[in-house]
Amino acid sequence: MADADQTAVVKRVSYLGPPGTFSEEAAMLYAPEAERVPFFAITGAAGTVAAGQVDAAVTPIENSLQGAVTDTLDELIHGDHGLQICAEVAMPIVHNMAAKPGMTMADIKTVYSHPQALAQCGRYLSERLPGVAMGASLSTAAAVEQAMAEHGAAAIAPKRAVDLYGAAILASAIQDDPSNTTRFVVLAMRDHEATGDDRTSLCFSFDEDAPGQLYGVMGEFAQRGLNLSKIESRPTRLGLGRYYFLVDVDGHRTDPAVADALDNIRRSVSLLKIFGSYPRFRA
Amino acid sequence: MADADQTAVVKRVSYLGPPGTFSEEAAMLYAPEAERVPFFAITGAAGTVAAGQVDAAVTPIENSLQGAVTDTLDELIHGDHGLQICAEVAMPIVHNMAAKPGMTMADIKTVYSHPQALAQCGRYLSERLPGVAMGASLSTAAAVEQAMAEHGAAAIAPKRAVDLYGAAILASAIQDDPSNTTRFVVLAMRDHEATGDDRTSLCFSFDEDAPGQLYGVMGEFAQRGLNLSKIESRPTRLGLGRYYFLVDVDGHRTDPAVADALDNIRRSVSLLKIFGSYPRFRA
Repeated sequence: MADADQTAVVKRVSYLGPPGTFSEEAAMLYAPEAERVPFFAITGAAGTVAAGQVDAAVTPIENSLQGAVTDTLDELIHGDHGLQICAEVAMPIVHNMAAKPGMTMADIKTVYSHPQALAQCGRYLSERLPGVAMGASLSTAAAVEQAMAEHGAAAIAPKRAVDLYGAAILASAIQDDPSNTTRFVVLAMRDHEATGDDRTSLCFSFDEDAPGQLYGVMGEFAQRGLNLSKIESRPTRLGLGRYYFLVDVDGHRTDPAVADALDNIRRSVSLLKIFGSYPRFRA
Repeated sequence: MADADQTAVVKRVSYLGPPGTFSEEAAMLYAPEAERVPFFAITGAAGTVAAGQVDAAVTPIENSLQGAVTDTLDELIHGDHGLQICAEVAMPIVHNMAAKPGMTMADIKTVYSHPQALAQCGRYLSERLPGVAMGASLSTAAAVEQAMAEHGAAAIAPKRAVDLYGAAILASAIQDDPSNTTRFVVLAMRDHEATGDDRTSLCFSFDEDAPGQLYGVMGEFAQRGLNLSKIESRPTRLGLGRYYFLVDVDGHRTDPAVADALDNIRRSVSLLKIFGSYPRFRA
């Protein structure tokens, strides 16, 4: 979580809605006192921060099972709002089976959820509810709404959505993989000052493929003993085979070794964008 | 596409179903004469190849907008079926607005599709069908079925699904981003012999994080002039922050430079898995 000083100025925070999503849970964890405003697309959230309607936006960036949340990466790479990452939050993803109060597992005829949540509980569903129909929803919150409205329906959803709609939990932590964790980033008009335990996210690309270019960039970090906690290539939309490289490096962009590495890298790439420096999340 | 000799022995090929998916289109492109068998989860497909029920399985591995298809990566990383990549196919993703024959755009009350397809046509929907409801489906093929059954419903779907269910196309190529491309891999019990224009996919990991480890591995390729066409880190499921690194390198694993690099890498990593060597796809 961000340190108290900087989080204190966050009065209004937007999150990927509708209310009841894991993003809302992450926003509550990041800034418990702030007013929460749902948004319905990551690009929309960026606009509300830039327009000053909210102080920050909380958006998922990576799930331990599903990998990158590409809409967030694309906003960071292509967005022209000047948003920076000022904090990160990592949260375990816990799926629950929920239904109208009074219903039992034996009453369930159909289970609704977002296809990704259904997939993350696939083994549980086939073992515990064989033969029960599955229905797709646009969000886990919409699934709970459907479960409350339709006879014999249940939903797979986060606890926050279950509470919001007055549903009851029939079984909790039903996800097949207990290590399911999502990392969220907090986007604001500036990143975070150095705390001594920071991380910097950035991306770069090259005009053309040539062996060893990426190796050269990584050498700037390696030679200074800077650990990369993540590297990822992401198609440039110029077609498969042309990539942006996204890197998380331990340290703050104002640390002398990091600043020096970035100066050198700038000279060897065609594009360098620093997404921000922020404190490493400690649960 | 694989060369004629090796593709000729593919009599039965499984693909990520139901019938009408982009995976079926890719299977038709890879082995036009083969019998096609749908499967409903990537792990299931791997089992059918290993059991000899089919000769190969076609599965998506990367989309230019969405990034990696993590189920396929996980099967390659964790699967114990001994499957290898023997070919790749890259295919443009074209979404169509489809409905019962006789319907017009003005008749549409609800548009069904997989949430991902709805998202990929979001701008088109808000501009051309403002105020029309959206409904989630478990697959684009299920969306066409729904559109054929429900009054006032339409579906966003690939042409193959539209044809299969006897629906009509009201508008074609409605995806917001024209560069939407998916790369599929063909999994079989052996990879492909060298053709002189090949690619090798592999993954590796380290017992613990230490600055420069990844850099050292990449140096084995860079020092031999071998181009990496892709690099990606993927959480190990031991929690966020521990990664498998997935790399595509130009060349065949039997090319002397590639073989030499792999021998050296094997000594510096805790795990090295070679997914296979296969001809680069040429449309």
